Amino acid sequence: MAMEGYRGFLGLLVSALLVGFLSVIFTLIWVLHYREGLGWDGTALEFNWHPVLMVTGFVFIQGIAIIVYRLPWTWKCSKLLMKSIHAGLHTVATILAVIALVAVFDFHNARNIPNMYSLHSWVGLIAVIFYILQLLLGFFVFLLPWAPLSLRALLIPLHVYSGLLIFGTVIATVLMGVTEKLIFALKDPAYSTFPPEGVFTNTLSLLILLYGALIFWIVTRPQWKRPKEPNSVLLQPNGGAPEGVESSMAMNFGNVDKSDAELNSEAAARKRNFTLDEAGQRSTM
Amino acid sequence: MAMEGYRGFLGLLVSALLVGFLSVIFTLIWVLHYREGLGWDGTALEFNWHPVLMVTGFVFIQGIAIIVYRLPWTWKCSKLLMKSIHAGLHTVATILAVIALVAVFDFHNARNIPNMYSLHSWVGLIAVIFYILQLLLGFFVFLLPWAPLSLRALLIPLHVYSGLLIFGTVIATVLMGVTEKLIFALKDPAYSTFPPEGVFTNTLSLLILLYGALIFWIVTRPQWKRPKEPNSVLLQPNGGAPEGVESSMAMNFGNVDKSDAELNSEAAARKRNFTLDEAGQRSTM
Repeated sequence: MAMEGYRGFLGLLVSALLVGFLSVIFTLIWVLHYREGLGWDGTALEFNWHPVLMVTGFVFIQGIAIIVYRLPWTWKCSKLLMKSIHAGLHTVATILAVIALVAVFDFHNARNIPNMYSLHSWVGLIAVIFYILQLLLGFFVFLLPWAPLSLRALLIPLHVYSGLLIFGTVIATVLMGVTEKLIFALKDPAYSTFPPEGVFTNTLSLLILLYGALIFWIVTRPQWKRPKEPNSVLLQPNGGAPEGVESSMAMNFGNVDKSDAELNSEAAARKRNFTLDEAGQRSTM
Repeated sequence: MAMEGYRGFLGLLVSALLVGFLSVIFTLIWVLHYREGLGWDGTALEFNWHPVLMVTGFVFIQGIAIIVYRLPWTWKCSKLLMKSIHAGLHTVATILAVIALVAVFDFHNARNIPNMYSLHSWVGLIAVIFYILQLLLGFFVFLLPWAPLSLRALLIPLHVYSGLLIFGTVIATVLMGVTEKLIFALKDPAYSTFPPEGVFTNTLSLLILLYGALIFWIVTRPQWKRPKEPNSVLLQPNGGAPEGVESSMAMNFGNVDKSDAELNSEAAARKRNFTLDEAGQRSTM
């Protein structure tokens, strides 16, 4: 399917993938070259899994999961397949984030360092909890076929908004984590004397911020949204595109397609006694 | 003018104002009760203006400037007046942010503390520079009447996107700043022993994050956008609403109205030799 501004999309996608990949590589260089390396023994080697897994899973993979509906090569794939990939990538990100949390709690407990006192830990834990709730909500409401259309229509703006809010909050949490770690770790020479590790890790953090900025741009361009399913017109009151509804209801902001027509055929919708108006609104999501 | 979901809007607006106001009050309590107070003498008293002015100007006032077009009571005011208020609030925020920067540089220089080594300072300075560029761009392109419609149409999605990106980055920078300050300042008792100041300031930071979340929700609801100017239909090729153009071009994401009709009448547009198509696209911004 043709995409408006395809070259621009391609350029930004390649940039995002490159910057995201570089962020992961820089994080590995940080822990392997500047820090103690990796291990699972309650020492700093175990702590170091925390930044590696968070940047890989909670930043890089989460970012890809957010934009996956926008890849024009997937537009001929079924919506159900794309939802499964979206949910699958977010599940991988969740697993890596949880292992990253275990690493830091293990390390703290082994060293008798208190847990959960810093702002980084407060905001980070809130982000992980909301991310898991968002994943469960997405699974039960949008992936499984049982939720009524009206519930999906009600929750989709919230799903898109909270997904992007959590992603932004995760990036803010990474920046706090780097700040904390560099102040604690860089003593001789101190962080304030511009040691190579400080400059390198600040630069890594700017890359992560840039990755977030690119993902936000890609996901908020209305022209790069996955097009309506061809059979979604069946759900329209007049058989056409409901422009009025679209302008008032659509989130031109997010990764959500306009139709679940492959799951909810006209017949099924009628069986559930939806009014045509409700069905029309749903089809713009 | 009637607004869809007016009660919801009102509830969220009041919540945002309350949470934003509380953030400023909490910041004042922090520096006046837990820290040394305020002054302008190169000591910590001067540093303390940094968080106070940043939270007041760069967070609270910037947030209000972002949503000002969405207040339904202003919809009968001219677009030029609303643009002036939008620009004016952002100018106030810029001035407070610059004074906040002077306070911290002064404090560092008086104490021989190096400047610009931390991630907080890198990201914060980038945010201030981009904010000033954004203000200048907004002033010359959108407020002054001379920029051609095609340039405005080209730049408005970038203006909205970068405005929200900068606002999010500013909040992330505040969270880093709090992290840094608490680690440096809380030594006996240490931050890790959950002293009242640590818990209080973590809570303040959560309020700031919540304020950002509320502003983002308010500004990304398509149904709360300022409506088209009544005379903007003059700019339409067919005299009606250009739904097709709207769905492909509109940023249903941001604080920008759909028309500058009060500045650019049909006659002026024709005089400048714009094609009807370009004029139609502009009118959806």
